Amino acid sequence: MCLIMEVGVGGAGGGENNDVLVPSTNFSMVEEGIYRSGLPQLDNFGFLRTLNLRSIVYLCPEPYPEENLKFLAANNIRLFQFGIEGKTGSIPSSSIMEAMKILIDVRNHPVLIHCKRGKHRTGCLVGCLRKFQNWCLTAVFEEYQRFAGVKSRSTDLAFIEKFDSVCLRQCLYSLIYQYQGYGSNKRRLLYKEDNLQKSRVTSR
Amino acid sequence: MCLIMEVGVGGAGGGENNDVLVPSTNFSMVEEGIYRSGLPQLDNFGFLRTLNLRSIVYLCPEPYPEENLKFLAANNIRLFQFGIEGKTGSIPSSSIMEAMKILIDVRNHPVLIHCKRGKHRTGCLVGCLRKFQNWCLTAVFEEYQRFAGVKSRSTDLAFIEKFDSVCLRQCLYSLIYQYQGYGSNKRRLLYKEDNLQKSRVTSR
Repeated sequence: MCLIMEVGVGGAGGGENNDVLVPSTNFSMVEEGIYRSGLPQLDNFGFLRTLNLRSIVYLCPEPYPEENLKFLAANNIRLFQFGIEGKTGSIPSSSIMEAMKILIDVRNHPVLIHCKRGKHRTGCLVGCLRKFQNWCLTAVFEEYQRFAGVKSRSTDLAFIEKFDSVCLRQCLYSLIYQYQGYGSNKRRLLYKEDNLQKSRVTSR
Repeated sequence: MCLIMEVGVGGAGGGENNDVLVPSTNFSMVEEGIYRSGLPQLDNFGFLRTLNLRSIVYLCPEPYPEENLKFLAANNIRLFQFGIEGKTGSIPSSSIMEAMKILIDVRNHPVLIHCKRGKHRTGCLVGCLRKFQNWCLTAVFEEYQRFAGVKSRSTDLAFIEKFDSVCLRQCLYSLIYQYQGYGSNKRRLLYKEDNLQKSRVTSR
């Protein structure tokens, strides 16, 4: 989603209201190539199209809505579903780990993470991503609460805090990213064992 | 700020706590190359360094803190200050317009917008940016409120709603962006009069 593309949309239409873009509820950019929101509705599809998504990480057990599936097919977007129950309050760490692997793989970018409201399940996954990025826990929680608001759940915060970073690092050893040259567009994903990283693990 | 850089930071240090990154309060990515937050403190400088900022848009009338000025000098970051009072509740649209010009100029990216808390003044500027991007007002307000929380001000929302998009478009005619080739890294800023755009204005 670039600034100028949006300007172009507005300029080309003439009448501004016809071209108004409606982001899905709780929409935000997480990182370059990673977005988050609640479940996109029909009137969000125009906006979603501007993101040029390559994939969607969907965190609910319910089947993906028919009209959303059609949107995905029409725009060549791949769906990764992880069926996490919304109301039990207990997040399965194995599902989050698998979702993390999809999330950090730049071949899946741009990617949109969403559950139903974009608060709890999405908030937990983004929280784990922030730990992976070495953010302090205070900032991770602040971000979680910004989206969850009064619906913030202490069980989610505890999940994020306890999420096993050793386990997270182990997942990394099979998925080593390496930058080639300068600029983010040139990064390339290599599947290989990295000896330097490996020796660091065993020394712990 | 790329995912992999953060991993590198964590991996290189061995002890994770030494390398924990502390984003400034209310920190978030707005768009590729545009960030927002509250006033960065000393313990946020390590995190800020990972953003490779080229400039800062500071929206308060108070002189920029001495230690922040030193951080800017050491990291070759340019400061653009727009002295907007925090408590009057009245935002001067001329200052916001000037700040918008800085914000949409990719030569200033990556840029961090901040005021004191990252709620009101920053929220107003980001709100105007979203209107410029043709977001629906509901989504613009939702985003404003996510950061302002219970401190949300109806005067700010009214300011964003009333912000003159014709005026905003006129500012655009002197700053026409044009993409060359494919990929966001290749975009180039041209200062020129664009006849096509101009004819659209006069026909309104």
